[in-house]
Amino acid sequence: MNPIFLLLVFSLFSLPPFSSSHGFHFPSLLKPSQISKRHNSDQKSSHGYETKHFTQILDHFNYHPKSYISFQQRYLVNGDYWGGAAKSSPIFVYAGNEASIDIFADNNGFLLDIAPTFEALIVFIEHRYYGKSFPFGSEEEAFQNATTAGYLSISQALADYAAFVVDLKKNLSAESSPVVVFGGSYGGMLAAWFRLKYPHLAIGALASSAPILQIDPTFDPYIFNDIVTKDYRSTSENCYKVIKNSWDEIDKAYNDSIKLEKMESSLRLCKGQGLYTQYWLSNALIYAAMTDYPTPSYLLQPLPAYPVNEMCKAIDNPNTGNDTFSKLYGAMNIYYNFTGTAGECFNISTAGTDRLGYSGWEWQTCTELDLPTSGNSKESIFPESKPTSIKDLTNLCKSYEHVEPRFSWPSIEFGASIIKKSLKRYGSNIIFFNGLRDPWSGGGILKSISSTVIAIVAAEGAHHVDLRGSTMEDPKWLQDVREREVQIIKQWIREYYEDFSISENI
Amino acid sequence: MNPIFLLLVFSLFSLPPFSSSHGFHFPSLLKPSQISKRHNSDQKSSHGYETKHFTQILDHFNYHPKSYISFQQRYLVNGDYWGGAAKSSPIFVYAGNEASIDIFADNNGFLLDIAPTFEALIVFIEHRYYGKSFPFGSEEEAFQNATTAGYLSISQALADYAAFVVDLKKNLSAESSPVVVFGGSYGGMLAAWFRLKYPHLAIGALASSAPILQIDPTFDPYIFNDIVTKDYRSTSENCYKVIKNSWDEIDKAYNDSIKLEKMESSLRLCKGQGLYTQYWLSNALIYAAMTDYPTPSYLLQPLPAYPVNEMCKAIDNPNTGNDTFSKLYGAMNIYYNFTGTAGECFNISTAGTDRLGYSGWEWQTCTELDLPTSGNSKESIFPESKPTSIKDLTNLCKSYEHVEPRFSWPSIEFGASIIKKSLKRYGSNIIFFNGLRDPWSGGGILKSISSTVIAIVAAEGAHHVDLRGSTMEDPKWLQDVREREVQIIKQWIREYYEDFSISENI
Repeated sequence: MNPIFLLLVFSLFSLPPFSSSHGFHFPSLLKPSQISKRHNSDQKSSHGYETKHFTQILDHFNYHPKSYISFQQRYLVNGDYWGGAAKSSPIFVYAGNEASIDIFADNNGFLLDIAPTFEALIVFIEHRYYGKSFPFGSEEEAFQNATTAGYLSISQALADYAAFVVDLKKNLSAESSPVVVFGGSYGGMLAAWFRLKYPHLAIGALASSAPILQIDPTFDPYIFNDIVTKDYRSTSENCYKVIKNSWDEIDKAYNDSIKLEKMESSLRLCKGQGLYTQYWLSNALIYAAMTDYPTPSYLLQPLPAYPVNEMCKAIDNPNTGNDTFSKLYGAMNIYYNFTGTAGECFNISTAGTDRLGYSGWEWQTCTELDLPTSGNSKESIFPESKPTSIKDLTNLCKSYEHVEPRFSWPSIEFGASIIKKSLKRYGSNIIFFNGLRDPWSGGGILKSISSTVIAIVAAEGAHHVDLRGSTMEDPKWLQDVREREVQIIKQWIREYYEDFSISENI
Repeated sequence: MNPIFLLLVFSLFSLPPFSSSHGFHFPSLLKPSQISKRHNSDQKSSHGYETKHFTQILDHFNYHPKSYISFQQRYLVNGDYWGGAAKSSPIFVYAGNEASIDIFADNNGFLLDIAPTFEALIVFIEHRYYGKSFPFGSEEEAFQNATTAGYLSISQALADYAAFVVDLKKNLSAESSPVVVFGGSYGGMLAAWFRLKYPHLAIGALASSAPILQIDPTFDPYIFNDIVTKDYRSTSENCYKVIKNSWDEIDKAYNDSIKLEKMESSLRLCKGQGLYTQYWLSNALIYAAMTDYPTPSYLLQPLPAYPVNEMCKAIDNPNTGNDTFSKLYGAMNIYYNFTGTAGECFNISTAGTDRLGYSGWEWQTCTELDLPTSGNSKESIFPESKPTSIKDLTNLCKSYEHVEPRFSWPSIEFGASIIKKSLKRYGSNIIFFNGLRDPWSGGGILKSISSTVIAIVAAEGAHHVDLRGSTMEDPKWLQDVREREVQIIKQWIREYYEDFSISENI
């Protein structure tokens, strides 16, 4: 697939020679294009997880001869703190999302942090068609065409986890151990849905930053960028204005070769990269907002604590320079070059392209996962724009991925807004965490639905910040959130033990 | 497929030239082989349902090019009593099971009986690969091989109902109408699972005679025939003994041509049919037990009220004759010839064979639905026998249907015995009805799990008797069961209306 296509799909802005009617973006919940360097790593996780594989079935729901194809699904396991099967000690399973499972093990230290308290076995399982868990032998084969890629779906991924959990417990003779499922972002959606679809296999779920309401194609597509806007504007009105006004200037540079060259120079873009500036800028703005963590992090990029604040400080700093591009450079240098290793110039069009190809997230967003984010109100930090229509998105997916999207299916299968109602008298033991600085929080459950379907909201929080490993610098609110989660999970496990004798299999 | 194969698969007994180690039976929850005459009927149901079709997708869970194939799914609808969308009047959906939907409309009069009280719309939806709802154009094409039959699975059927319900409500502008799902037998399993898997689409389920615990391959395989035995033995010890002792006599006749001819004559079997006697007899015994209704019925066969009692009366009657075969004839003539239209002699090997071929229930029982029933204790009304092993069943299915069964999958997907535990703090609004004379009741939920997951048990009841249309002759206990079900469903709907303004979409 042409790199430009991805820039187009994932960009807010039209890029020559594409017309603006095709210019829409879809921010990945966890942007795959920027995690590629760790993607093929064979190194052991720094946390000392052991890597194992499970023989998984390609298609759980049919008995077509092709359904029987199997593949190796990778998982990471840490039993250092496990109390063991005889004590029915719990098993904590992280439901992997759209990248290599190593990334999630590295960025969800919460599970290991709390493992000693619970004497829990910790398992991270990799999502099919990501990382090293490809059917058909390799990533290339898996994404060769729709016939091979066609088994990448949410339902199959959840069924993988169900088959895995049952087999794992059996192998460990831990049938009576309660399972709690965890996940952040798309993984949080999977965790919540796993509890909803397989309640007999998990006693509860911590679904962090899971925009489960956003799977509905009719979801308000302005909310996402409204939150991005609020993040910057609440940090600094001047910062917001500089950015807001920059798009026109960039547009002018697109149409004037001298201005373009000057812009490239100011932004330290490599030669010929200026035409991708708007993509490059918006990408940084969105992901800095998502990962606006209170401590330094490396989820998508190595970033300082509170990157939005740092970027705005650079823009607001009178020493950064007076012209817009110098100011933007200051901000982008924080996002794209925090460790100072970016080299002589920024190369946008190749950045992230090593993950290009017919890959998983593009497939999922072109088949079933339309999470509307593309509208921009007049006040948006991005240029005002109408949301991409379902029709346009459908046509684009058809022409590029050769599949007809079924965007309405996830709402049918999992429920979208109606879940807030149906869960009132149904379901139990789900925590929905959301940080309100996270643009995906707009699609999350922000109010508790019942005494056991609980929303935890942190005004200062970003994308699944609760699941990150604790540090000495964690603010009080974050410590409190985690402590509350621990107490709720303890309650689930206590009830489980109360309900059933631990000697009795469940 | 050879008719003998089905006799083998569905028979308790070995038939020459097959060795006894392959002789196992699997009683269909609703035996397809005997409903064939109505199978291709184009006639309108006597209840005046309107027949409609819904364009259904072949494969809900993949995005393989083949997944997009569509087919026409038949459904029956009666709106005579519906209060309408404006009043958010309820929609009652019968989840069709393993036969033509007409059969279920005819045999589940309860829905229409209660429709006026609830001002409910009544819909019966046909299960994929049954009746007239075949993908690939026809039954023959659908069952051509595993490549076409492979999309027949429980998960796909449930997803069909989900897609259908959402579309129906949308088409009727009845988004705020609550849906209650009903089903009996395998349809009852589907109803319960629909509520469990799609709680946002149905506010409750009445699952009648649904052996959801029996999907586990480790389920006690003796329970089924123990109940059959109890049904006859509690009716008449002599009746039980005559039957119990008959198998040896039949065995002897199998090995002696003169005795065989005499047996054929006594049983009025057509010439050459004697070798199928044990199948023919066990079939009648099992299905009479299942449908031991208090009023005359025609689910599988036209039968008198309390057929077990009638059959035992014939056996016990000294006028029936003194020898075993004359007594058995008396009983079989009730089961197979209640309307006196059987003709000059009984033709076993062609009876039911018009439904033979690569058909739905055989496929389902050879892919995922192992409902163990094949063990016979020493006291069984049938000859003592060890249950068929999973291995033997697997081998048989592999050789005849060319598929590898995945019998453990339904327990993973839906939960089997653990559901009794997990539902305690999860789920709501399910009624599990069971009649204890029904041999399938052994796999049912016989104790209430919570205040909203309720078991209703009728000691005198048979297979989904509660869902039958009411008659003037219904015993008090049956009237009480139905009244209780109505009150519970009323409560669900009342709560639904209380929870949500009816003007608000759900």
